[in-house]
Amino acid sequence: MTFDIARARAETPGTRNVLHFNNAGAGLMPKPVLDAVTDHLKLESEIGGYEAATLNGALRERAYQAVAMLLNAKPEEIALVENASVAWLMAFHAMLRHLRPGDKIITVEAEYASNYISYLQAAETHGVEIVVAPSDASGAVDIAALENLIDGKVKMIAVTHVPTNGGLVNPAEEIGRIARAAGVYYLLDACQSCGQVPLDVEKIGCDALSVTGRKYLRGPRGTGFLYVRKDRIAELEPTFLDLHAAQWITPDTYKIDPTAKRYENWEFYIAGVIGLGVAVDYALGWGMEAIHQRVVGLAGNLRASLGAIPGVTVTDIGMQKCGITTFTKAGISPSGIKSALASKKINVSVSGRSSTLLDMDKRGLADVVRASVHYYNDEAEIRRFCEAVEVL
Amino acid sequence: MTFDIARARAETPGTRNVLHFNNAGAGLMPKPVLDAVTDHLKLESEIGGYEAATLNGALRERAYQAVAMLLNAKPEEIALVENASVAWLMAFHAMLRHLRPGDKIITVEAEYASNYISYLQAAETHGVEIVVAPSDASGAVDIAALENLIDGKVKMIAVTHVPTNGGLVNPAEEIGRIARAAGVYYLLDACQSCGQVPLDVEKIGCDALSVTGRKYLRGPRGTGFLYVRKDRIAELEPTFLDLHAAQWITPDTYKIDPTAKRYENWEFYIAGVIGLGVAVDYALGWGMEAIHQRVVGLAGNLRASLGAIPGVTVTDIGMQKCGITTFTKAGISPSGIKSALASKKINVSVSGRSSTLLDMDKRGLADVVRASVHYYNDEAEIRRFCEAVEVL
Repeated sequence: MTFDIARARAETPGTRNVLHFNNAGAGLMPKPVLDAVTDHLKLESEIGGYEAATLNGALRERAYQAVAMLLNAKPEEIALVENASVAWLMAFHAMLRHLRPGDKIITVEAEYASNYISYLQAAETHGVEIVVAPSDASGAVDIAALENLIDGKVKMIAVTHVPTNGGLVNPAEEIGRIARAAGVYYLLDACQSCGQVPLDVEKIGCDALSVTGRKYLRGPRGTGFLYVRKDRIAELEPTFLDLHAAQWITPDTYKIDPTAKRYENWEFYIAGVIGLGVAVDYALGWGMEAIHQRVVGLAGNLRASLGAIPGVTVTDIGMQKCGITTFTKAGISPSGIKSALASKKINVSVSGRSSTLLDMDKRGLADVVRASVHYYNDEAEIRRFCEAVEVL
Repeated sequence: MTFDIARARAETPGTRNVLHFNNAGAGLMPKPVLDAVTDHLKLESEIGGYEAATLNGALRERAYQAVAMLLNAKPEEIALVENASVAWLMAFHAMLRHLRPGDKIITVEAEYASNYISYLQAAETHGVEIVVAPSDASGAVDIAALENLIDGKVKMIAVTHVPTNGGLVNPAEEIGRIARAAGVYYLLDACQSCGQVPLDVEKIGCDALSVTGRKYLRGPRGTGFLYVRKDRIAELEPTFLDLHAAQWITPDTYKIDPTAKRYENWEFYIAGVIGLGVAVDYALGWGMEAIHQRVVGLAGNLRASLGAIPGVTVTDIGMQKCGITTFTKAGISPSGIKSALASKKINVSVSGRSSTLLDMDKRGLADVVRASVHYYNDEAEIRRFCEAVEVL
């Protein structure tokens, strides 16, 4: 199957201005997403915020359906929230309510700082124990070792699918098999995988999964979503409630929404939600398998080309890799590389030690440059990028 | 001082399309706010989301300064968050960590459902006791009665400044005097007051105060902020943390941000934050005293005119009133009134029983129509509105 790159680039205004290899930071919004957001904002200014929400109610509903379709979930299993962190935190703290002192949470070496900070906080507040499953030689979580860690005290497995600092894709489905067999909560942070890696919550077998809109889905900043498996929703009570998540029934009683809307707030960035729905439909239009194949192909070429540059060290781990490539270059700091590239309108980011501290410390890394490609990037950009890195 | 209504209306595109008396739902965005949000979104699509945030970093910083100026606070006491609910919940749950079973939270009769649901949840999870301070004859909280409720078990006073279902402004400064004397936490929900009532956190004496962007501040939907008094920030640890609110230092340690940024997330609706800053500056440009005077004047006229219509009952309470007017009309339901007015491009909302259940039940009210005016509304609109209500 061929990918219509010309169309992808024509519909991405930013490709005319920048060489954007910062899709793991925030993907460039395609024109239909930008238009959907700004059209709704304009409508709000013209007829009122609540009135615009009513008029565009179907577009808002579509966001739930599109996300559900993307994940092979049901719309009532989807909460639309501010970002992936909020999504993850709502699920994590709902699960944490069921843990007792001495219970264990298993996570992985390349875990994201936000999540690990929450485990450390939970260790203080709830007396839970954090267990880090070791990585295999490739850098992915060692599935056999993870399975061996399961005992009666383990109550949760919480894993970052694609870490922030390298190309790795952790084996989500194999982890799911272990979690299901053990009957423990499985929370998957799919913030960096969704939009580049096909996700099927039935195959993965997770209880909850958190995603942001702004990265590989190319949606608006300030949007994200949480999936919670239908048969887990009732027991996973949110720590934060409002009059959208619950209803005040009598002076002494309230009733929490039976769907995943219990993890939402009443007040929404409606324009963003509508834009997120358009972004998901846009991704579905290209097809997640096609996107994945193209992103992995481009990143593979980028990795190979970078690796051939004198002084460059590619720092990716894992056997199954994604669109994220990280590297360092002798004689120039990662932030120096980022600045130098920025002056040529080339966008990358720097992934710092403290964002994935366990993995970075284990590998003796401080900061690394992160170049993350998407399907609308092309081979000419990879060549231009590598030339720019070479002359630094 | 005269108010330049012509300019206010010219800068509010929506006034050309609708008669907007739903400012307590969402105020009409002025043109400079809409432009700030859409300009930044466009920039994100043109050069990348992170790159646009860097380029417009000063506009984002300005939002903290503008909000601080609005409240007579310091920028480091301000957290910019998704909405007022999140702001309130972050503060409430941080305070709740310091409460023990049997400790008391004092609130008021016209308390907002979202907050009361959280008190009920806290009663379950933390064994705290909810104490409702009675209202005086006017419907405002009875200050003498509130003061009499203070005992060694009271640890928090949490009050909605302007309730969702009527014109009342609760006496925030008098409550603050009691809270300070008792040395207990004071959390003020200023969601509906900020932007129409001048707020000075030093005069109010609150420890925390939550606000939304979309109502009387006329900012973008999906924005809000939390003020936390500087000398309370260290002890008020957020329930939810991420790598923006805290930093992962060593495998077993993390450090929470010393400023109010600890109540924020890394991922932001940056365009909205920029728009919020513009909205606050826009309000400051008109002047909060001038806005307050005009809003109270208009609402007073509306209340009087509505009260003169046969069959209409104005259901506002309180001696000190604001821009919100609620009413019912014999022979037609509030939702019927809303629909009928909507067909004439007149925007109001319906305030339901369950949003302020204690107060509504006490007064034997089910739903009421809520008409909320802002400074850009005018006397001609009030006349047209009352004529439309009269013929229903």
